Amino acid sequence: MDSKIKAGVVGATGYAGAELVRLLAEHPAVSVDKLSSVSFSGQEISKIYPSFRSGLASLLEPNHMSMLDACDVLFGALPHGLSQPIAADCAAKGKVFIDLGADFRLTEEEVYTKWYDGHFDDPDLHAEAVYGLCEINRADIRKARLIANPGCYPTSAILGLYPALAGNLIETTDLIIDAKSGVTGAGRGLSQTTHFPESSQSFAGYKIGLHRHTPEIEQALTQISGQPVVITFVPHLLPVNRGILSTIYCRRRSSLSEVRAHYEAVYADEPFVTVLREGEFADIKNVRQTNCCHISLHEDDHTDKLIICSAIDNMVKGAAGQAIQNMNLIFGLEETTGLPRIAPAF
Amino acid sequence: MDSKIKAGVVGATGYAGAELVRLLAEHPAVSVDKLSSVSFSGQEISKIYPSFRSGLASLLEPNHMSMLDACDVLFGALPHGLSQPIAADCAAKGKVFIDLGADFRLTEEEVYTKWYDGHFDDPDLHAEAVYGLCEINRADIRKARLIANPGCYPTSAILGLYPALAGNLIETTDLIIDAKSGVTGAGRGLSQTTHFPESSQSFAGYKIGLHRHTPEIEQALTQISGQPVVITFVPHLLPVNRGILSTIYCRRRSSLSEVRAHYEAVYADEPFVTVLREGEFADIKNVRQTNCCHISLHEDDHTDKLIICSAIDNMVKGAAGQAIQNMNLIFGLEETTGLPRIAPAF
Amino acid sequence: MDSKIKAGVVGATGYAGAELVRLLAEHPAVSVDKLSSVSFSGQEISKIYPSFRSGLASLLEPNHMSMLDACDVLFGALPHGLSQPIAADCAAKGKVFIDLGADFRLTEEEVYTKWYDGHFDDPDLHAEAVYGLCEINRADIRKARLIANPGCYPTSAILGLYPALAGNLIETTDLIIDAKSGVTGAGRGLSQTTHFPESSQSFAGYKIGLHRHTPEIEQALTQISGQPVVITFVPHLLPVNRGILSTIYCRRRSSLSEVRAHYEAVYADEPFVTVLREGEFADIKNVRQTNCCHISLHEDDHTDKLIICSAIDNMVKGAAGQAIQNMNLIFGLEETTGLPRIAPAF
Amino acid sequence: MDSKIKAGVVGATGYAGAELVRLLAEHPAVSVDKLSSVSFSGQEISKIYPSFRSGLASLLEPNHMSMLDACDVLFGALPHGLSQPIAADCAAKGKVFIDLGADFRLTEEEVYTKWYDGHFDDPDLHAEAVYGLCEINRADIRKARLIANPGCYPTSAILGLYPALAGNLIETTDLIIDAKSGVTGAGRGLSQTTHFPESSQSFAGYKIGLHRHTPEIEQALTQISGQPVVITFVPHLLPVNRGILSTIYCRRRSSLSEVRAHYEAVYADEPFVTVLREGEFADIKNVRQTNCCHISLHEDDHTDKLIICSAIDNMVKGAAGQAIQNMNLIFGLEETTGLPRIAPAF
Repeated sequence: MDSKIKAGVVGATGYAGAELVRLLAEHPAVSVDKLSSVSFSGQEISKIYPSFRSGLASLLEPNHMSMLDACDVLFGALPHGLSQPIAADCAAKGKVFIDLGADFRLTEEEVYTKWYDGHFDDPDLHAEAVYGLCEINRADIRKARLIANPGCYPTSAILGLYPALAGNLIETTDLIIDAKSGVTGAGRGLSQTTHFPESSQSFAGYKIGLHRHTPEIEQALTQISGQPVVITFVPHLLPVNRGILSTIYCRRRSSLSEVRAHYEAVYADEPFVTVLREGEFADIKNVRQTNCCHISLHEDDHTDKLIICSAIDNMVKGAAGQAIQNMNLIFGLEETTGLPRIAPAF
Repeated sequence: MDSKIKAGVVGATGYAGAELVRLLAEHPAVSVDKLSSVSFSGQEISKIYPSFRSGLASLLEPNHMSMLDACDVLFGALPHGLSQPIAADCAAKGKVFIDLGADFRLTEEEVYTKWYDGHFDDPDLHAEAVYGLCEINRADIRKARLIANPGCYPTSAILGLYPALAGNLIETTDLIIDAKSGVTGAGRGLSQTTHFPESSQSFAGYKIGLHRHTPEIEQALTQISGQPVVITFVPHLLPVNRGILSTIYCRRRSSLSEVRAHYEAVYADEPFVTVLREGEFADIKNVRQTNCCHISLHEDDHTDKLIICSAIDNMVKGAAGQAIQNMNLIFGLEETTGLPRIAPAF
Repeated sequence: MDSKIKAGVVGATGYAGAELVRLLAEHPAVSVDKLSSVSFSGQEISKIYPSFRSGLASLLEPNHMSMLDACDVLFGALPHGLSQPIAADCAAKGKVFIDLGADFRLTEEEVYTKWYDGHFDDPDLHAEAVYGLCEINRADIRKARLIANPGCYPTSAILGLYPALAGNLIETTDLIIDAKSGVTGAGRGLSQTTHFPESSQSFAGYKIGLHRHTPEIEQALTQISGQPVVITFVPHLLPVNRGILSTIYCRRRSSLSEVRAHYEAVYADEPFVTVLREGEFADIKNVRQTNCCHISLHEDDHTDKLIICSAIDNMVKGAAGQAIQNMNLIFGLEETTGLPRIAPAF
Repeated sequence: MDSKIKAGVVGATGYAGAELVRLLAEHPAVSVDKLSSVSFSGQEISKIYPSFRSGLASLLEPNHMSMLDACDVLFGALPHGLSQPIAADCAAKGKVFIDLGADFRLTEEEVYTKWYDGHFDDPDLHAEAVYGLCEINRADIRKARLIANPGCYPTSAILGLYPALAGNLIETTDLIIDAKSGVTGAGRGLSQTTHFPESSQSFAGYKIGLHRHTPEIEQALTQISGQPVVITFVPHLLPVNRGILSTIYCRRRSSLSEVRAHYEAVYADEPFVTVLREGEFADIKNVRQTNCCHISLHEDDHTDKLIICSAIDNMVKGAAGQAIQNMNLIFGLEETTGLPRIAPAF
């Protein structure tokens, strides 16, 4: 079919890249035309991931240069710092670039420099980038050519807090986000921490007070609430492959039933966000391998706390799926095309 | 679209049923019109499986009676012994019935009685039933109205041995099938064995010499080889959700390279069967959540043994996926429609 | 050896009971003389737990009555509400009773009634009970005959907060305890939530704002700080067998290094509590199957939060191990006798 | 206690070494005096394994030289090929050496050279080494100064077959050993295969027909049966930390009840071997973290096969525990001293 969108994935053998390739390969309106990998250039991707054996034969390019002309859209799934030149090349060629890395997520260079020790090569390009959290920035995304796909933790935290902050239902101080992520969040690189015998019975926090997703979350929440939001963000590593659950603590200004009514209204037409019923708890299992976000709302009566649980699949809504959702919006497709909404029950 | 196939699932809340519902809900040529469940009649399926929250709202019928008129095809996902009356009702109404249970798999009543302690209500109906192992019985399946969908272990064992027996490449005596299945194979019913704290660090055999899939495998292998095949079949329970790996031991009559060439030839055009390359090992991970079967071939030089490893997902190719593959064949669809072929890499 | 302490376990086949039996069987100063189980009375315990096959043959008594005369100490590992009569019988016979249930943990009947829907049969007996958190109540425990062994979550939370509250290093308001427990915390009883295929990929909160350990934690923290402490407590279920990690959020009044110095001083001589070094994170893996508690201290600079991570094994320090630690104190043994301090590395 | 055995572990930071250190540290008749590690020389072992934080502070020596004088016994837990010089140094100093590596397991240099690509530095030393499978070679072990501690798979296979072969109850041809091992069997070294996200849902065979434990098993079985035994050995990697289950297929010469009676007689006085009852299945869970071996016996009536399931913990009876059992025998201690026999039930 000539009319398919020609997609390329730069960095196809990292975990986010491999998930992108899998989802794009089953997307009815896309042809996966080009993949690249610095480490495995010249090999078939099924050599690295035998799970592709029955469905995709594709040689890996060394980098994005050979992909620019062949593709309508490039996805970047690279370590931070490597996307800026690709974005520039895409802009020069008039191609859409959807960056799963962090290079274009922060709007202020000073903050980017502080947390990522890098610089904005071309501030105009940064000004043009749209933060690709579809449920919030849908209109801008439709017109964008350069997308900063949100981080996994930020997606879960921001979707969990958006209605509460936008509706002024909670205090904006003392927000605490206790987040837990599956091990794929640590990527394909080997480490003792992710060696099976040492991770399968492990659960611990890491990078407490120091995680780079902190400024990204604060930037988004500040934009939503219109006033400076400062958070305490603590990530943990869960011994499962996929999923992020953020348990969010805040002081409520409204009753739980008002809060729930507001969340249901805000997300009423969102195909990927479900506000769970009273008595239900957001569970990473129920959004696994989907582009969905489940949100459950709870209160602690005797301390007047609102507790929000927000669950996503870190590799789908937190990375590859949301990138495709952005692509769908940009190319005028039905937003849900090619994105699973039903998790395997087991 | 009016032209969609109207499908119903009888027994939608068991594990095979729930997997069928999930796959049918994302099948482009099917509308899932009716679901039933004795246990949860009158409830929404998303109450039992919150993973359906974002994708399917469907009330559960009490039984198949209300489904017969509304559907073109019924799938039965019931404990053995309950499918015969449904098959009869489908036949009377001219509907296709695909039975995931064991009622129609064995061709001889005597064998069925011995292993399942049951009887053939209507021998004519049994005579009409086609054993739905698509790679072997494709032509008959296309014309069938009543399918006996193969068991999970048999699918893995038979696909692993089919080319070797059909090609006369191994002895037909002393066949040993050492099989390992994920815990979903034990179903949704609760037991101490499948209670997380007691299963997560467990690995053991069960029903050694007594498993009901033994006669089903022997029947199929005997048909393939044209002479009586008797097997030793030992199943084990693996502490993962999905997957069956059968390690099959036989005495070879040909060299490993001849065997591999023959397997590659037999399965060359099969969309769901991959013969792995030398040095590769069939792994349940690489077929997870797909309708694929990976087969790897090995030898033990100093004992002249051929060792065949055959991996499937017990819930997909071993149950729900193969049932849909049968449906695709019967209704003249592309055989691969709606059936995943790329496993998540993690 | 005649001089061994004769111990009996009432409720030996529940998870806390079975863990007690295992630890007591390897305790050098104890003989496990009597076990009881309502459900499996008259059977050998190795029928229920084959892991006892090589080490213990013991018939299960129907209840505690036959155990009173034979034992020096009874451990109660029963559902809440069943321990009061046993405690009374032990008191009458002059036997030590260590209750792993909740019956004697709360000092005020009103609070007990509110959360457990029960009553104090004999207020004098309640007045006599000592809350068995050894690191805090050691002197009283040594003289006690009736011990209320702390709950699993409370043990982790209280040990994590004790030095900070006792030393007045944090605000006593807005304390948040985000706790995660392994599945053994849910006990031996079967449920869909703990069925392997539905729990192995799951992570979610439960009983938010409603968990019965809330008043127990508040009672202990209030005693420590000398002023009313109110907490927000949110438990989650982790897909591992053992371990609790509590991530505790509070507002600090001192610098992190002052806090760490104070923790190190308070716990300097404690054989089971380790304050981890800067850059280390408390991990359930490192205390698994031990009676130890690992505490790591962190800060979030830009919000002035102190974050305390406290890890224990819910079945050992959170139940059976602490019960034995109490027994050791009461019977004048070295406190560490028979209690593992080195976790398996994998 | 001055009279404690002074033990040293060469290679203390590999998995077998770390398990040795843990077990020795809790052994009542041993003091762990010296540990070495090439990779972490000069560091505390608790830096590498925080699970040692509460129980052991020990600086790592660079190699065995500094340990010879301080210790009565050295354990070698090194990659194959590195133990021969240590054994020579121990012999020269009159110290006991227990080698967990493969250097001294094979009695014929030719076979060693073929499978390990190495040579016997000193054939006299090899002649002196005793194969440390205690249940079979107990008398020789008591007099030995140099022990070749058996491999993990061989321990499970040989204990499973010993009574059958010694009692002439099975044919010696066509023996098939289908073995499954937990991931710790692959050691501490990192690889994509043991990276959590790629191993947690995986199950596959490896090194089929090529595993180095094959000649070790055949050597032992040949000695037992008195005639050449050739086996087919296929190992698989199980997604759990610990445990080996060998499912062994053979042709029986006696009835199952005769076989069971013989096994019970042979192992009647063995403290670590349990022959399970009819209807029970050997499960890795029930021997986890113990030095025990559980054996269950089964038949396949219609093929006259005897099927033996043999379960051990690969790190304990398959490595560190058996090494300590050997030490106990050599130093005249009760054979069971310091070796757990009750597995955690969960």
